[in-house]
Amino acid sequence: MFDSVSFDAKTATQSLDDHFQDVRLYSLDLVKSLSEADVQLQAMADVSPAKWHLAHTTWFFETFILKVFVADYTDFEPSYQYLFNSYYNSVGEQYPRHQRGLISRPSLSEVVEYRHWVDAQITALLANQSSLTNDQQVRLSYLMTLGLQHEQQHQELLLTDIQYNFFQNPSFPHYTAIENSPSSPAKPLQWLPVDSGLHTVGQADTHQDFSFDNERPEHRVFIEPFEMADRLVTNAEYLAFIESGAYQDPQYWLADGWAWLQTQHYRSTPAPLYWVLRNNQWFEFTLAGLKTLDPHAPVAHVNYYEATAYANWCDARLPTEFEWEVAAKQYHAKPAAEPVKLHPSGQANHSALSQMFDQVWQWTTSTYGAYPGFTPFAGNAGEYNGKFMSNQYVLRGSSCVTPKGHARTTYRNFFYAHQAWQFMGIRLAR
Amino acid sequence: MFDSVSFDAKTATQSLDDHFQDVRLYSLDLVKSLSEADVQLQAMADVSPAKWHLAHTTWFFETFILKVFVADYTDFEPSYQYLFNSYYNSVGEQYPRHQRGLISRPSLSEVVEYRHWVDAQITALLANQSSLTNDQQVRLSYLMTLGLQHEQQHQELLLTDIQYNFFQNPSFPHYTAIENSPSSPAKPLQWLPVDSGLHTVGQADTHQDFSFDNERPEHRVFIEPFEMADRLVTNAEYLAFIESGAYQDPQYWLADGWAWLQTQHYRSTPAPLYWVLRNNQWFEFTLAGLKTLDPHAPVAHVNYYEATAYANWCDARLPTEFEWEVAAKQYHAKPAAEPVKLHPSGQANHSALSQMFDQVWQWTTSTYGAYPGFTPFAGNAGEYNGKFMSNQYVLRGSSCVTPKGHARTTYRNFFYAHQAWQFMGIRLAR
Amino acid sequence: MFDSVSFDAKTATQSLDDHFQDVRLYSLDLVKSLSEADVQLQAMADVSPAKWHLAHTTWFFETFILKVFVADYTDFEPSYQYLFNSYYNSVGEQYPRHQRGLISRPSLSEVVEYRHWVDAQITALLANQSSLTNDQQVRLSYLMTLGLQHEQQHQELLLTDIQYNFFQNPSFPHYTAIENSPSSPAKPLQWLPVDSGLHTVGQADTHQDFSFDNERPEHRVFIEPFEMADRLVTNAEYLAFIESGAYQDPQYWLADGWAWLQTQHYRSTPAPLYWVLRNNQWFEFTLAGLKTLDPHAPVAHVNYYEATAYANWCDARLPTEFEWEVAAKQYHAKPAAEPVKLHPSGQANHSALSQMFDQVWQWTTSTYGAYPGFTPFAGNAGEYNGKFMSNQYVLRGSSCVTPKGHARTTYRNFFYAHQAWQFMGIRLAR
Amino acid sequence: MFDSVSFDAKTATQSLDDHFQDVRLYSLDLVKSLSEADVQLQAMADVSPAKWHLAHTTWFFETFILKVFVADYTDFEPSYQYLFNSYYNSVGEQYPRHQRGLISRPSLSEVVEYRHWVDAQITALLANQSSLTNDQQVRLSYLMTLGLQHEQQHQELLLTDIQYNFFQNPSFPHYTAIENSPSSPAKPLQWLPVDSGLHTVGQADTHQDFSFDNERPEHRVFIEPFEMADRLVTNAEYLAFIESGAYQDPQYWLADGWAWLQTQHYRSTPAPLYWVLRNNQWFEFTLAGLKTLDPHAPVAHVNYYEATAYANWCDARLPTEFEWEVAAKQYHAKPAAEPVKLHPSGQANHSALSQMFDQVWQWTTSTYGAYPGFTPFAGNAGEYNGKFMSNQYVLRGSSCVTPKGHARTTYRNFFYAHQAWQFMGIRLAR
Repeated sequence: MFDSVSFDAKTATQSLDDHFQDVRLYSLDLVKSLSEADVQLQAMADVSPAKWHLAHTTWFFETFILKVFVADYTDFEPSYQYLFNSYYNSVGEQYPRHQRGLISRPSLSEVVEYRHWVDAQITALLANQSSLTNDQQVRLSYLMTLGLQHEQQHQELLLTDIQYNFFQNPSFPHYTAIENSPSSPAKPLQWLPVDSGLHTVGQADTHQDFSFDNERPEHRVFIEPFEMADRLVTNAEYLAFIESGAYQDPQYWLADGWAWLQTQHYRSTPAPLYWVLRNNQWFEFTLAGLKTLDPHAPVAHVNYYEATAYANWCDARLPTEFEWEVAAKQYHAKPAAEPVKLHPSGQANHSALSQMFDQVWQWTTSTYGAYPGFTPFAGNAGEYNGKFMSNQYVLRGSSCVTPKGHARTTYRNFFYAHQAWQFMGIRLAR
Repeated sequence: MFDSVSFDAKTATQSLDDHFQDVRLYSLDLVKSLSEADVQLQAMADVSPAKWHLAHTTWFFETFILKVFVADYTDFEPSYQYLFNSYYNSVGEQYPRHQRGLISRPSLSEVVEYRHWVDAQITALLANQSSLTNDQQVRLSYLMTLGLQHEQQHQELLLTDIQYNFFQNPSFPHYTAIENSPSSPAKPLQWLPVDSGLHTVGQADTHQDFSFDNERPEHRVFIEPFEMADRLVTNAEYLAFIESGAYQDPQYWLADGWAWLQTQHYRSTPAPLYWVLRNNQWFEFTLAGLKTLDPHAPVAHVNYYEATAYANWCDARLPTEFEWEVAAKQYHAKPAAEPVKLHPSGQANHSALSQMFDQVWQWTTSTYGAYPGFTPFAGNAGEYNGKFMSNQYVLRGSSCVTPKGHARTTYRNFFYAHQAWQFMGIRLAR
Repeated sequence: MFDSVSFDAKTATQSLDDHFQDVRLYSLDLVKSLSEADVQLQAMADVSPAKWHLAHTTWFFETFILKVFVADYTDFEPSYQYLFNSYYNSVGEQYPRHQRGLISRPSLSEVVEYRHWVDAQITALLANQSSLTNDQQVRLSYLMTLGLQHEQQHQELLLTDIQYNFFQNPSFPHYTAIENSPSSPAKPLQWLPVDSGLHTVGQADTHQDFSFDNERPEHRVFIEPFEMADRLVTNAEYLAFIESGAYQDPQYWLADGWAWLQTQHYRSTPAPLYWVLRNNQWFEFTLAGLKTLDPHAPVAHVNYYEATAYANWCDARLPTEFEWEVAAKQYHAKPAAEPVKLHPSGQANHSALSQMFDQVWQWTTSTYGAYPGFTPFAGNAGEYNGKFMSNQYVLRGSSCVTPKGHARTTYRNFFYAHQAWQFMGIRLAR
Repeated sequence: MFDSVSFDAKTATQSLDDHFQDVRLYSLDLVKSLSEADVQLQAMADVSPAKWHLAHTTWFFETFILKVFVADYTDFEPSYQYLFNSYYNSVGEQYPRHQRGLISRPSLSEVVEYRHWVDAQITALLANQSSLTNDQQVRLSYLMTLGLQHEQQHQELLLTDIQYNFFQNPSFPHYTAIENSPSSPAKPLQWLPVDSGLHTVGQADTHQDFSFDNERPEHRVFIEPFEMADRLVTNAEYLAFIESGAYQDPQYWLADGWAWLQTQHYRSTPAPLYWVLRNNQWFEFTLAGLKTLDPHAPVAHVNYYEATAYANWCDARLPTEFEWEVAAKQYHAKPAAEPVKLHPSGQANHSALSQMFDQVWQWTTSTYGAYPGFTPFAGNAGEYNGKFMSNQYVLRGSSCVTPKGHARTTYRNFFYAHQAWQFMGIRLAR
């Protein structure tokens, strides 16, 4: 993949190193308020301990860059190759994913030390690029970018995972003391027309900016005429759905969704993942602790079944991922320079088509698969995306906790239909 | 849906009744060689007892036609509404699917009596159509066709289910004594070019012939240039894949597929569902009992993970459902008047693009979803297809046990990625 | 074991053959009202199809007698060695127990043919005993008795299993048309004193009559003073327990029992296994179909947790198996010549200590273990009892469906604490 | 229970307080080498985090003493009533046991603060006993003793739990740096005769010293003649069992044990829980890390199935709990003043009947049940033991990590047959 991309390696070096420092520091910033015990929590197999995120992203740089470009590289600690490999079979075996919360040693400070050591090696490598061939420089630059994009993905996961982990504690710990103000009332939902016809989607291999292999190559799709909702579904709207009895009525639900609902029998009043009912009042668990439900904020933490049932309930549907992308381009929707952080705010942005980014990822009816002509990343990084292309749904946009500069119009996030712990919400189409 | 279709109801009556008699008799033919005990077998939740198929298809006519068109209709037996409802929540509760094999009463002969009774009522209704309004006649005609298409689907399932059930018996009972001759050697696989560009797929709502709601409406898709394999993958080719060690090498497998493989630890030599290794020789369990593996017949009973791994192994891929449909139209592939029955034969048909029908259903990378503008069947029949549009993959073509006249180019069959008990095989694209 | 028992083999031959004919015929009698489909039902792993019971008991005679005593014996059908072996690892591998309901072939008539064939061989063997050594005759006699006792155990299971299987059918089929009359009101429960001190329990190895190895050897136990309830707990008494809210109050329950209760969430009103609540009236499913609950009959189909909770609720306890045996001897409790059949009747027998036999098995607090000096049956039959001596509780007495002549005071039945599908009830002690 | 015990409360106060300080400090000593992350580990539901042990034992004093004896007592932190209640339904609901490892807050230091606060309140209460009635003083004294015995039980569990938790870490962390020296060769096993006849077992209610309710009352049992092995089974002896192929041969195994073994398919070479095979050499994971297997030390961490299979393999059996107790008394076996700690040492003690205490708990064939006349502790503490009296086996003796002064001849420990993470070993009888 990277062979076909041309980088101006010389001028890029300094900015790459700066960017590297920024991204790496931000990961450490994210755990500042967490204790040694907090960073080890793993409440289900889908989430990872914060400490593991810090170590795994470091392992990524060590494995895919230092071991490739540094002659006679010696592992910081050989056992980390097993402990912090996520799923790269071509690199070696992996410690069982669902047991990551059982690793009390190395400690957080040992992991931080690991980070500093690898960071120093990377900085030295970048400073000595002149000893590399031009091809190597291009390749290094690409892998550095990949490593940083990878770390940004884990920064988002670190936050959504800690939220899930804290939710298991009946005292509802808060990660941050900073709270959103309640959202202003949402405007009435408007339907915006989207141009039908043949459209180009995805990112060209010749494009200068980074994209994951799963966003490539650029290709054409035909879009039938449709309309897109100009904003996200709000908590108040979703509450009306609940109060109508929709969770008890199979007509709105996919068969798999109805079957999933029957496994939730422990929950007397079904609702989005973090909603908590106390004395007939709804609260929502957030990274700032348990808060009164904000009626005008976008509904978050619904799974694909809930999103689909909601859409059926109001005689609409979810968009495909290409409808989403085409609409975003037509209406010039763009991520903000800084995401909302750390909870959806409900604020509209200036575009007619609002809240496409920075609030919640938006479920689409598209399942995650390869674009025509898809080529995985070369080498071991080929396991990055391709092998997950089954049984998952694409979400588009970005969320309030997506790191600055990580979102783009062609970005494809993907999760299983039953999963809800990300900031996931509902954009309607019809 | 049916409101928009115009039928010539008068001339259609006689042929409908004839067709009805034919289809209904064929179901009874299928169980002629089975005992009262055979027809009750249910070896997993995905399969149903043959007796249940006979009863459920009858329930369908009773529920969706007799109860609607016959004034003061009295149920043949009220408890059947619960026992033989498959999944129609709008009609009422259902007996648990995985326990269908626990219903020894009603007996087979009581179920046959139920069939005769309902058949007589339907015949009487058809004979008295003149008492119905024109709209009612159109609707009746449509529902009759739907009921017969439905029964044909169950005829195929009845056979694949009995094969699965018999496979659990170590004596490998045979359903039929008629065997295929060994296939002639397959020609070397050729790659056929398919026209890229904008194509129309699906069936128009105005089309005269029947189609399921999931095949509608007709719409446009853009197809990038690609090539299609001119025939199916054979057993011999798949055996080479096995013998290369591919089942032990994660590089070929989707992550979900690799995880599925790890649950098959009871099987020392992984292989397609019905392959049996004895004294280092491969056999295949068929409806005619255990047979030496036919090297030139199409490989059957592989799941989506196996199909994908095979394609990866030979640097190819599976087609999308639209690539399949466009190729079928371009090369004028058509189902035979009579399918191969009761096992893939490996014979090529005259088209350059061979074996598109009548052998094995072909996995595509398309997940089962709604076409743009999809409208479910009206009324209770709306649960027929739409609610299953998640987490399943579309298979195209038809199989050796698909009833005569049931296959068509726009037909969408759908199963979960791990399922293999249908006649499912591999068509490559690249 | 049998080596130490002396039999008068000559005079025993004729009566053994008569007994053999009687017992074998009775098994066939039991399935007279069942269809080919009925005899194949297996609704959980704990129960077996009636057809399997017929075949397995035949396999037992074939394997443990014909193959040992008949030179050059040829199997009736070699595959039956695998299909109908229950759990004798020393004999060979076994078809998976939970899949017995998936064996539609051999058919019932083939199994009956198998029975007739083996019966004829056994009769011939018995007639030709003079060709055997004296030791062989003793051994043959013992194994014949073991085979018949074994068949009687399966006769009881055949009935309790068919009841469980029919219970899954919402039409509640009845096995028999013969019904009990409602029981007369039970006398107020009386407490009978039992002699404390050193008692002999179990059966001596030198005893003439048959007993299983698990009842041997005779040994001494010290019994502290206690009192025994003079009759069983009735349905009316158990209903008071339910209506007091005891199923919702953990104070009465063993921790394992409370955990078991939490897994029964699908049942809105917990109650004994076959109790059915309709329009606020209690019914009980019996072999004669669904019947109004008989208030004065002994409560049946409660598991160990329910029996213990009931005892706690009324400030009593369950007896140990030795307390039960000592009380039975002291009060001369004896099984009737004919059990009550096919449901507990509630009738008291003449002994002061009533209903010790013929109604329901009685849970004791004794777990199933080896008596001091326990020696398993010799040979393959050694797997008969010994290997099950863990995690199960002993039940004493006999039930309404225990075959005539099978019950005795030293008999030890055993089941897991959660199991309730046998005729199991409650005898209190304090 | 405690009402019937007479204490000299006045003289006991000071020594009680001293004992209280000692026991409470020892718990804190046990976590000195552990990090905040270590004390939160919970690798299966059966084990608890060390932090939870520290908090729960404190909760016990708070709930059963401070809330009873201190007027207007205010909870240190109300949420702890839910978080740190283990299983006392009469006190209130409990946080799910298997999720204890998900509680990162309160932190270890907050829990230590909780301990100090409760300790101070207890000390004040003890100092002010004169304000209590005599009955209250007796009761307080008894509950204090119960609380301390309870804490000692958790001290042992804290160590066995941390060993299990550390075992999940592939780097095999060590809890302590202090190691045992390899054991001297064990003497050939001798069989010691034990007196048959009527024996008194258990502890009398009138006995001065503490015992749990489950050890009471004293009662008589008849013991048939038998012999007891004079020492425990060693690792070398158990290794011979493994190497004979016994793990692959069902003849030695209980049926439940064989079924358990089939679930261990991930383990290529079955062996005791903490045995690790590397390059054909056996190691054992201990609290001092991974060590070469000590051939002469008692085998530890075998479950009931393994212990029984081993006994069958050498034509012996396990003793009953009463045989164990009678033999201990006859041979004057006594716990040492200080247990071996932190791993079995293999050293014999001076008694002819050696290693009855201080090495490993010894499985008996007795299931955990109530003694004749058993009365649970009064009040909420009644849930302490009685409700666990099902499906578990009694182990006798004590282990290398049993706290000083906690062991006694009548002590009954109890675990499920499949559990092996305690220091559990094998004493043979015959």
